[in-house]
Amino acid sequence: MTATEVLAQADCVQFDLDDPLRAFRDQFEIPEGVIYLDGNSLGAKPRSAAACAERVIRDEWGIGLIRSWNTAGWFDLPTRLGDKLAPLIGAGAGQVVVTDSTSINLFKALASALTIAEQNQPARRVIVSERDNFPTDLYIAEGIIGFLDRGYELRLIDDPAELSNVVDSDTAVVMLSHANYRTGNLYDMSTVTAQVQERGALMIWDLAHSAGALEIDLVGSDADFAVGCTYKYLNGGPGSPAFIWVNERNLHLGQQPLSGWWGHARPFAMEPGYEAHSGIRRFLIGTQPMTSLSLVECGLDIALAADMGAVRRKSLALTDLFIDLVEQHCGEFDLKLITPRDHADRGSHVSFVHAEGYSIMKALISRGVIGDYREPGVLRFGITPLYVGYVDVWNAVDVLRDILENKAWDTAEFREREAVT
Amino acid sequence: MTATEVLAQADCVQFDLDDPLRAFRDQFEIPEGVIYLDGNSLGAKPRSAAACAERVIRDEWGIGLIRSWNTAGWFDLPTRLGDKLAPLIGAGAGQVVVTDSTSINLFKALASALTIAEQNQPARRVIVSERDNFPTDLYIAEGIIGFLDRGYELRLIDDPAELSNVVDSDTAVVMLSHANYRTGNLYDMSTVTAQVQERGALMIWDLAHSAGALEIDLVGSDADFAVGCTYKYLNGGPGSPAFIWVNERNLHLGQQPLSGWWGHARPFAMEPGYEAHSGIRRFLIGTQPMTSLSLVECGLDIALAADMGAVRRKSLALTDLFIDLVEQHCGEFDLKLITPRDHADRGSHVSFVHAEGYSIMKALISRGVIGDYREPGVLRFGITPLYVGYVDVWNAVDVLRDILENKAWDTAEFREREAVT
Repeated sequence: MTATEVLAQADCVQFDLDDPLRAFRDQFEIPEGVIYLDGNSLGAKPRSAAACAERVIRDEWGIGLIRSWNTAGWFDLPTRLGDKLAPLIGAGAGQVVVTDSTSINLFKALASALTIAEQNQPARRVIVSERDNFPTDLYIAEGIIGFLDRGYELRLIDDPAELSNVVDSDTAVVMLSHANYRTGNLYDMSTVTAQVQERGALMIWDLAHSAGALEIDLVGSDADFAVGCTYKYLNGGPGSPAFIWVNERNLHLGQQPLSGWWGHARPFAMEPGYEAHSGIRRFLIGTQPMTSLSLVECGLDIALAADMGAVRRKSLALTDLFIDLVEQHCGEFDLKLITPRDHADRGSHVSFVHAEGYSIMKALISRGVIGDYREPGVLRFGITPLYVGYVDVWNAVDVLRDILENKAWDTAEFREREAVT
Repeated sequence: MTATEVLAQADCVQFDLDDPLRAFRDQFEIPEGVIYLDGNSLGAKPRSAAACAERVIRDEWGIGLIRSWNTAGWFDLPTRLGDKLAPLIGAGAGQVVVTDSTSINLFKALASALTIAEQNQPARRVIVSERDNFPTDLYIAEGIIGFLDRGYELRLIDDPAELSNVVDSDTAVVMLSHANYRTGNLYDMSTVTAQVQERGALMIWDLAHSAGALEIDLVGSDADFAVGCTYKYLNGGPGSPAFIWVNERNLHLGQQPLSGWWGHARPFAMEPGYEAHSGIRRFLIGTQPMTSLSLVECGLDIALAADMGAVRRKSLALTDLFIDLVEQHCGEFDLKLITPRDHADRGSHVSFVHAEGYSIMKALISRGVIGDYREPGVLRFGITPLYVGYVDVWNAVDVLRDILENKAWDTAEFREREAVT
C-alpha cells in the first residue's frame, strides 16, 4: 500500500476484512461513536475486566478475606504476572515482576545500576539520557542524584544520533525510552545496548511506549535493566502496576534500596534484619493493590493470544496509512509530522505539531476521535492494532480534515485549558 | 464491666443491643459463619465496594477512557482522598495524600527527614527504632542507610521504656509504629514526640495499626511525618494505596528523592527539569492504580460517619472482654497475654503467645474464627469495632476453648505450614 493507492474509505473497509487481527477487537469494549487513538496513554477495557474485578472484590476480598493471600494466590501474583508478561518483552521466566509504578521501578533499576557501576568503575559519574525522554524518567534520575550527593550528573542528548558521541568512559548508566512518548522515535535496542556496553556503561530501557505494540527481545539484546507500563498497549486498566525486568547477571550485584517486606528472603519470618530474596522478588517492596494488579491479567491474556509479529505489521500499516491520509487530505493545514517515516525508527503512534494543536485535539475529542495533546503543540495518535482498524484511521483523518477546513477548533470552549490534557 | 460480671453469652447479646455503633455492621459484608478478627491485617469489604468498582471499571475506564483524568477526577484523587482521611488522623487539609505503599511512603518520609537533619545537625547519624517494629519499616531504613553510605546506623530498642535513654545528641530521626503490629502496644504520641523533639531529633510515626481504630492527633502532637495503611482498620480493600502526612514546617525542607511526574509543580508542561509542587503533592511519584485507589473511599466514608471516640471506647471494651473471657475459660491452656492491659498502652488487637500458636490459629480459621498468626508463636486477634460485636468475641473465645480442650489443633493438617500465614 502506498499513499496514492488509498483513495476511499471503501479501500479501508477491505483492509479491515482482510486483517488477521480483526477478531481481537471484539475482546474490548470501545464506547459507541468513539475512535480510540489513545491506547498509548490508557489502553481500552477488555470485556473480561468486569468479571475479573467482581471475582477479586466479591470472592477474594469479600469472602476469602485474609485467606486469599494463599487461596487466591495474591502472594504469587506479582511474579506470576511477571512470568506471563515475560514472552511479550523477550524475557525469561523468573526475570520480571509486575509491581509499583514505572517511576518507582525506574528508581530501583537506576539505583541498582549505579551501585553496580560504583563497585566496578567508581570513577564513572555520568547518567546519559535524552532531553526529550519522558519527563518522569529524568525527574527520577535527578532525585537519585540529589539524594546520593556524590557527584553524579545527568547528561542529556538532544538527538538520538548524538548518543554515540556522548557515551564515554565517564558514563555509568544510559537510560532511554525504547519508543519516545512524543515523537514515537524507536531505538534499535540491540545496536544501542551493544554500543553502550562496549563503552563500559549499563543500559536501562523504558518500554512504556513499546511493550505490547511490537516485538521486544530483552534477553537477545542483553540489556541490563528494563521497566515498563501495563496500562498502555497492554490494556491493564487505569494506573495498573508497572513491571521491571533485571538481567540475571545483575540480580545479585548492586543494591535495590527500596527494600520492603515483599523483597525479603523470608518475609513471614518477621526478622528485624533485611536479607534480599535470591530471585527477582527482591525488586518487590510493599503490599500491592490487588484489584488493580489482578486486572492486568485480562490485558495480558489478550496480548498473549495475538502474534506480536502480526501486531507490529498492522501497527506499521496503520501508522503509514495515517501519515499518508493526513498528507493527502490535510496537506494545506500546516501539520508537521514529527514521527520518523522509516519503519525501523517508528513506534506505534504518530505525532504532528500544529500551532493550535491543543484546540484541535479538543475539537477532535468532542467529535469522538480521542488522541491526546502533548506540549509543545503535539497532536498524538496512538495505534493499538488489537482494537484499531483501517476504517477507524480513515474516519479519524476525515474528521481532522473537517475540523481544520472549517476552523472548528477556533472556539472559546476548545481554547480553554483543562487541568489534565 | 469486669471479668466476673461476664458469665454468659446472653450478657454479650445485651451489650450488642446497647452498642451505639451496632448499625455500622450492616455496611460491611462478612461471610456467613465467619467471625472476622483480622481487620488489622485486611479490613472487611464495605457493601458499597462493588458499585464503586463497577463505576470505575465500566464508566470511568470503559467509557470515559483517558478523559477520566479530568471528568472522573483521577488527577485529584490522591489529594482528595488525603483530605478526606485527614480528620481521622488529626491532620489538616492539604497535608495528606493517599498513594503508593506504606513501605514506599516510609522511604519518602525517612529520606526527607534525614536530609532535613543533615542540613541542621549534620553530625547526627543515628536512626532510632524498635527491634519489634514492623519488619518492613526496619528494612526500608536499612535500604536507605546502605544506599546513602554516609555513616548512618540503625539503633534498635528492645522495650518501649528504653526510648528515653537511647535518643540522644547523635539521633537524627526516631521512627516508631504507633501501635505495635505484634503486641498491640500503643505509644503515647504526644509524649513521645515531645521527648524526641526536645532532644533535637525528628519523629516519624507509622499509623498502620492505629489509623481508623482510635483517635489520633498528628497536628496536636506536632509530629514530623506519618505514614499509614488504608486496608486495615480503614477497610480500603486488598493492598489499597497507603497514606503519608507531612508537617507543614517540613514540606519545603529536605528532599523527597522519589521525584516522579505527579509530584512536579507543572506535570503537564513536560519540562525536562524537576521542580517539586509547593504542596503535599510533592510526595506523589507516578501514576496510581485507580481501581484500588478509588475503593479506598468506600471505607473512608464509613469511618467518617462514625464517632472515633465511640470506636475507641468499643475497641477497649471488646479487647477487655476478649482478655477476660480467655482468662475465665482458657486459663489452664498456657496462653500468655502479650498485649498491655492498661488502656492507654493498648491498640485495637489482642495477642497471646502459645507454643502451638500456628496450629491453633489454623484450627480456629477452619472453624470460622479468623485471626492470624505471627512469629514467634503469636495468636493475634484484631478488633474492628465497626463490624465486630460482643457476641462475636464471646463465640470466638468459646471456639478457642473448645479447640484447646480437645486438642483439636493437633492434626497433620493444622501443623502443615502454608506459604503465607
